[in-house]
Amino acid sequence: MTLLKLAGANKTLKGHKLLILTPQFLAPPTAFFDKLKAEFPDLKAEHRALDDFGQRTVNFPAEDWKDVTILLTFNALPTIEQAPKLQYVQLTSAGANHILKEPVFVDTEVDFCTANGVHGPQISEWIVSTYLAFEHHTPQYLDKQKQAKWDRSDANTIEDAVGKTVGILGYGSIGRQTARVATALGMSVHAYTLHPRPTPESKKDSSWTPAGLGDPAGIFPAKWFSGKSTAELHAFLSSGLDLLVISTPLTDNTHHLISAPEFEVLARAGETRGGRKTYVSNIARGPVINTDDLVDALNGGLIRGAAVDVTDPEPLPDGHVLWKTKNVIVTPHVSGASTAYGTRVLAILDYNLGLLSRGEKLTNRVSRKEGY
Amino acid sequence: MTLLKLAGANKTLKGHKLLILTPQFLAPPTAFFDKLKAEFPDLKAEHRALDDFGQRTVNFPAEDWKDVTILLTFNALPTIEQAPKLQYVQLTSAGANHILKEPVFVDTEVDFCTANGVHGPQISEWIVSTYLAFEHHTPQYLDKQKQAKWDRSDANTIEDAVGKTVGILGYGSIGRQTARVATALGMSVHAYTLHPRPTPESKKDSSWTPAGLGDPAGIFPAKWFSGKSTAELHAFLSSGLDLLVISTPLTDNTHHLISAPEFEVLARAGETRGGRKTYVSNIARGPVINTDDLVDALNGGLIRGAAVDVTDPEPLPDGHVLWKTKNVIVTPHVSGASTAYGTRVLAILDYNLGLLSRGEKLTNRVSRKEGY
Repeated sequence: MTLLKLAGANKTLKGHKLLILTPQFLAPPTAFFDKLKAEFPDLKAEHRALDDFGQRTVNFPAEDWKDVTILLTFNALPTIEQAPKLQYVQLTSAGANHILKEPVFVDTEVDFCTANGVHGPQISEWIVSTYLAFEHHTPQYLDKQKQAKWDRSDANTIEDAVGKTVGILGYGSIGRQTARVATALGMSVHAYTLHPRPTPESKKDSSWTPAGLGDPAGIFPAKWFSGKSTAELHAFLSSGLDLLVISTPLTDNTHHLISAPEFEVLARAGETRGGRKTYVSNIARGPVINTDDLVDALNGGLIRGAAVDVTDPEPLPDGHVLWKTKNVIVTPHVSGASTAYGTRVLAILDYNLGLLSRGEKLTNRVSRKEGY
Repeated sequence: MTLLKLAGANKTLKGHKLLILTPQFLAPPTAFFDKLKAEFPDLKAEHRALDDFGQRTVNFPAEDWKDVTILLTFNALPTIEQAPKLQYVQLTSAGANHILKEPVFVDTEVDFCTANGVHGPQISEWIVSTYLAFEHHTPQYLDKQKQAKWDRSDANTIEDAVGKTVGILGYGSIGRQTARVATALGMSVHAYTLHPRPTPESKKDSSWTPAGLGDPAGIFPAKWFSGKSTAELHAFLSSGLDLLVISTPLTDNTHHLISAPEFEVLARAGETRGGRKTYVSNIARGPVINTDDLVDALNGGLIRGAAVDVTDPEPLPDGHVLWKTKNVIVTPHVSGASTAYGTRVLAILDYNLGLLSRGEKLTNRVSRKEGY
């Protein structure tokens, strides 16, 4: 299975077959296949349309799988037996939690690469715009607009972002782009990563990012926290955060990472700052937060408010209490959506094909140890 | 009247009397007066409470006006006769149009200084967050949240800001901070100023800005347009703008600057870009846009949408057609509101007192020629 990999450089990608599985509306344009042909003349490449985005299995002849070495997909995967030559799977999602238990991931050495970096811009926009909307009372003004009513009565409690602090739990591509925008807004940045990043070299992030965006050098954080322990997490949560951005992968370590004790830590930290509480933004995965505890924290005023694009359960059932809890914005897992999404996923694929052709390590690889 | 000014440096501000006129809730904290005392030991300073923010005249004994040399105010002004020693008026607003016809401005040489820079952060936040909210369909998702309904149906038309272009009509402190944030979002910036700014020196802006924010050096614009003529304005509006920010002062030159012909120019420019139209954001003053033409442009699809924090008439009457025109966000002149507002106005006042004490030119002075 790793024969082609061991061969080192393979400029034309001879012997490789790329299969792209997406719904029809996300099919790559012809120009993309032309580009691949020019870059990697021996690469065979084809697109097959899925019925829908979440489709886990495909029904086409086993024959069509057997030479596939490279696969671009979200959910749909072959068995190990179906695709014996598979060596690189480019996921279209930033998270990999949905494939961590798949045999073709667990029991092989196939490189699974996330679409890290594809989501940075639009999810950062979602984070920043929901936070600012909350602080500027935009939802209330939209309601007043519906009533065709000029009413400035809430204006004197609008707080701008200058001098505020954003804590970013999981300083990956989304967190780094959020840090870039937050810095431009005049906020200071506290980063949190699983592993310590004490040196300039360790602060770097080599994953793909659109040119000029993100924080590849790790220069934005004024403070950098790290660790696996509750004490280390709580130190971060106590560091005076006006906004807490949850942008960590969902793993066994991060399941219910933010629960009642963490909301209490945030509230206590707020008490030491004149009562100013933290606004919580979750664009990671729903189960990183304990939903019941979030509802309690909102109702009890332990946090300033929350914006969640991901929920647990998800989809959030019609009529679930979270929909109508005070000071919360809930959107239906759309923060990663962008008309530029497909173009960026293909840019990562193309970038990784270049690395593969030069016999270099792929970017955005999922660690089998860390699970992201 | 200009006696003290001609005296040059006056480190202790001997002979000066500062009167601060604001509603009670905006009264400076005692600490501010202590700071002034330490900096300018001979300055007399007092606060008087207005009944409301818009109050134009004050009723206190003529005696109390006569030694006032420095006034901080929004609307309330003395007659020339009441305050014969007046030499510096610090306005609390970014715009000066409300005082341009006041005798104490027209018929004297008193320095009127705006609060330029006070509004940059929060108004930029308003501009960016309403634009992103529109593009991310946040108003629709807030409606779906009210219905407690998980509905992702509009997600595939969400466009992020990377590679988009913002045109900033009036590249002052608000425009410059907007440029900073837009750049961090991956947008490119086209600036428009009345006067040409061909050299690095001419691109600079010496008006007050919070540390580290704005664009004092004028480095963000990829293209810089200028001029007074319709042809020059239309060249700017034709330059491929995804977002047009109107941040120009209201003067005779800018009254109805954006009317039917300008919306048509924007629409035609959109046609050359695959039909992608411009989103229009007005945080300047309502009359810079012709309201009827804006309604027509929205209804006719000449523009992508609009966010207006200022209207004409203003307040926008209950039931006015603009409230319910499609693709528009209307807020009741709140974009400049911030709990940090007062602190920043006092920072400008303090900064200008420093300049005055050193016999230097004040910052943010309103030009009697330009009217801003």
